[in-house]
Amino acid sequence: MSAKAFQDYYQEKYSHCYGCGRLNEHGMKIKSYWDGEESVCHFTPKDYYTGGFPEFLYGGLIASLMDCHAAGTAAAAKAREAGVDPETKPLDRFVTASLKVDYLIPTPVAALEIRARVREINGRKVWLDAWAIADGKVRARCDVLMVQIPE
Amino acid sequence: MSAKAFQDYYQEKYSHCYGCGRLNEHGMKIKSYWDGEESVCHFTPKDYYTGGFPEFLYGGLIASLMDCHAAGTAAAAKAREAGVDPETKPLDRFVTASLKVDYLIPTPVAALEIRARVREINGRKVWLDAWAIADGKVRARCDVLMVQIPE
Repeated sequence: MSAKAFQDYYQEKYSHCYGCGRLNEHGMKIKSYWDGEESVCHFTPKDYYTGGFPEFLYGGLIASLMDCHAAGTAAAAKAREAGVDPETKPLDRFVTASLKVDYLIPTPVAALEIRARVREINGRKVWLDAWAIADGKVRARCDVLMVQIPE
Repeated sequence: MSAKAFQDYYQEKYSHCYGCGRLNEHGMKIKSYWDGEESVCHFTPKDYYTGGFPEFLYGGLIASLMDCHAAGTAAAAKAREAGVDPETKPLDRFVTASLKVDYLIPTPVAALEIRARVREINGRKVWLDAWAIADGKVRARCDVLMVQIPE
């Protein structure tokens, strides 16, 4: 893992997201990194992000984390494919076109590992799989289409 | 619209959700009601729920709102199908099995109307369509499968 996260390479104007924007002072500020061909994000939710049951995590938060992590992964993958070093040129910004989450088993309110892998890159579109792990078990899976914003 | 919302008829043990639980003091406490064959929820997000762009809403929040609204609609629809008055028996609780959100056009950080309609009820499963409206335009659409928790 590198010291700087994908989200640290967004332009300032694209860094206000509640989930992943480094400039959103109320936000979750998630950080995503390469781990070989996969990307990874570690995040521990605040204890009030419960679902209907107090012992399990809110499904909306799981979707949100996978969404932001996949957006960052799409941007980093597109730069890597183009051979662009984000230290010399900020990452392009991707927005979500479609997000499908399958909730497999309940997720505890505990340390989470969010992972993603690029399935296909075609022009401005990037398709990814993402998944959320807690206590060593995959809790939710996600199929995402991200689209690059034209500059 | 009735004075009490779907979420006011959940049992106490199922009312801790960050999105819709009336007992989650940090949460958004969304409220959903019948409006004919559709259900409706009005919600104005806090101004820091921005997406990558400061003028648009965070996609994760849109997914979260449609998810909670659809869960409440599934519960209310199941009770209505069974002819059960929630004043005499609390609503059953549904959890999300699968949630697919298509983001059609950006959503402003403004008053939102979330709507849902039941597509099919089959035993413990309820399939729904949900959509999010701002300034009179549909911004996102959602296809959801909710599953009733066995008591």
